[in-house]
Amino acid sequence: MMGGGDVERLIQLLSRLPGLGPRSARRAALTLLRSPQTRLLPLAQAMEAAAKSVRTCHVCGTLDSSDPCSICADPARDRGLICVVETVGDLWALERSRLHPGTYQVLGGVLSALSGTGPDDLNTRSLMERVASGGVREVILALGATVEGATTAHWLQDRLADSGVTVTRVGHGVPIGGALDVLDDGTLAAALSARRPA
Amino acid sequence: MMGGGDVERLIQLLSRLPGLGPRSARRAALTLLRSPQTRLLPLAQAMEAAAKSVRTCHVCGTLDSSDPCSICADPARDRGLICVVETVGDLWALERSRLHPGTYQVLGGVLSALSGTGPDDLNTRSLMERVASGGVREVILALGATVEGATTAHWLQDRLADSGVTVTRVGHGVPIGGALDVLDDGTLAAALSARRPA
Repeated sequence: MMGGGDVERLIQLLSRLPGLGPRSARRAALTLLRSPQTRLLPLAQAMEAAAKSVRTCHVCGTLDSSDPCSICADPARDRGLICVVETVGDLWALERSRLHPGTYQVLGGVLSALSGTGPDDLNTRSLMERVASGGVREVILALGATVEGATTAHWLQDRLADSGVTVTRVGHGVPIGGALDVLDDGTLAAALSARRPA
Repeated sequence: MMGGGDVERLIQLLSRLPGLGPRSARRAALTLLRSPQTRLLPLAQAMEAAAKSVRTCHVCGTLDSSDPCSICADPARDRGLICVVETVGDLWALERSRLHPGTYQVLGGVLSALSGTGPDDLNTRSLMERVASGGVREVILALGATVEGATTAHWLQDRLADSGVTVTRVGHGVPIGGALDVLDDGTLAAALSARRPA
């Protein structure tokens, strides 16, 4: 008996969130329950609003409250420059950096024999359509530096080879602020092969 | 622009929960947004239900969906044995252990000059009423082993001195499964002074 049915159900659902275990779920629930009007209800309402409005952008595949999403609909974004990412989380990371002036394509995964993700499971149709309809200058492949990410990048490069657009990949190497002695061999090899005149 | 207004507000509110930073709030939000019907809405509804039903038990002071709470209302609980704790979280910890067959009293804090918590700020009136109305055999003080916890325990012991009920304190010492060499001196001192014939 921990606060009765409603409270127990709240803790149980909270503990299923990534990053929250049973212990932190209880702590979060307690914080919310102490301020039902100012903290719990607003969060419930924000969740309901998001659940009602969230949709997948039919252009780039991201999650947004509108379709086309706020990025694809933004007239200030460069539609000639498309950055291909694996997940919505990757898109958000790039958006936080404010470094990419173009639009995106969210694949929703990478090719992986292990997890059974094939070409048909990736959201690439709208990318090909955008490329085919013209106006796209460059496709930046910003996929993870994993075997699956590299495989997917190769495959996309192949599919875009005859389209006439420039296909680039993000650089791999020593992270800025990173010390060399903590890096794995793969990153060191990538950094060495990506060396430039100083 | 991270998914539009509704999504950003959800992330912002989630990131204010204890245990969730901005990064894990985004991860949690993404997980929820990927399943709006099966994960996001049920959580929103559980929060709304809890916000509507949560109340403070007028007997023991815990948070529950009913008043008196499910523990105070349970005929199987021993009303003659009251365990005094600082917070609802402490009550939940004891309930998980299923070790306490009695009822509780949640003080809502401990006496602290630093945080300005005085006797009037503690929820003790209903404890005194329960003791005065008879039927209480023992009051167990399960307060933290801190200066404030000890001060509060002393003060409560004083107030209950003439009531005729037995006042006990939980034991302090080496935690079960704990190694001695990682313990602080205070715990070691408590463990030594609480020694018993082997």
